[in-house]
Amino acid sequence: MPDTRSAETQIDALVFDERGLLPVVVQEATTREVLMLAWANADAVRRTLETGRATYWSRSRGEIWVKGETSGHAQHVRSVATDCDGDTLLYVVDQTGAACHTGTATCFTGRELA
Amino acid sequence: MPDTRSAETQIDALVFDERGLLPVVVQEATTREVLMLAWANADAVRRTLETGRATYWSRSRGEIWVKGETSGHAQHVRSVATDCDGDTLLYVVDQTGAACHTGTATCFTGRELA
Repeated sequence: MPDTRSAETQIDALVFDERGLLPVVVQEATTREVLMLAWANADAVRRTLETGRATYWSRSRGEIWVKGETSGHAQHVRSVATDCDGDTLLYVVDQTGAACHTGTATCFTGRELA
Repeated sequence: MPDTRSAETQIDALVFDERGLLPVVVQEATTREVLMLAWANADAVRRTLETGRATYWSRSRGEIWVKGETSGHAQHVRSVATDCDGDTLLYVVDQTGAACHTGTATCFTGRELA
């Protein structure tokens, strides 16, 4: 059920942590694989909603990060959903190329615990 | 590819945040839906691996939380995978009943942003 409130009102209702961030779970629309977990601040969410390109906050670089801007491995966002607490987002995306910077399809590939 | 190191060695290799926690993405094995995002400390991961029952750290209650212990809506864990950075886990589970405490199948149901 799409939320009909304005994007800004929806972003205001999100619960960011003490760093101003919330976790974003990223799932591939077609394969249904969980690709990665990333972090977003309010501006990253706003840009994602405005552009349809998955946008995050890079904690290591301390800057806005448009996925695929360097690698070409972009994520086109089909939907953005909040969880019941409003403190986590789920981006369902069409992934171009590998989601993981290691070159694998997902960041969860191949390291399965016992 | 299952990791053949001991569970304790694998847990030691995980990257927990300053609170001693890491985020856990939970995906249903059959429906492939992303059910929820929860948090785990080392002990929660250890118990999950030992028991096969999804176990988390409840930030609101400040205690170990075996999913479904109160509600009956347990999660039987098929696999636990780390991401490329070792700072996020993916539990793939068989969910009994509703995953969300609100009674919906997933915590991401019905609140889709524009």
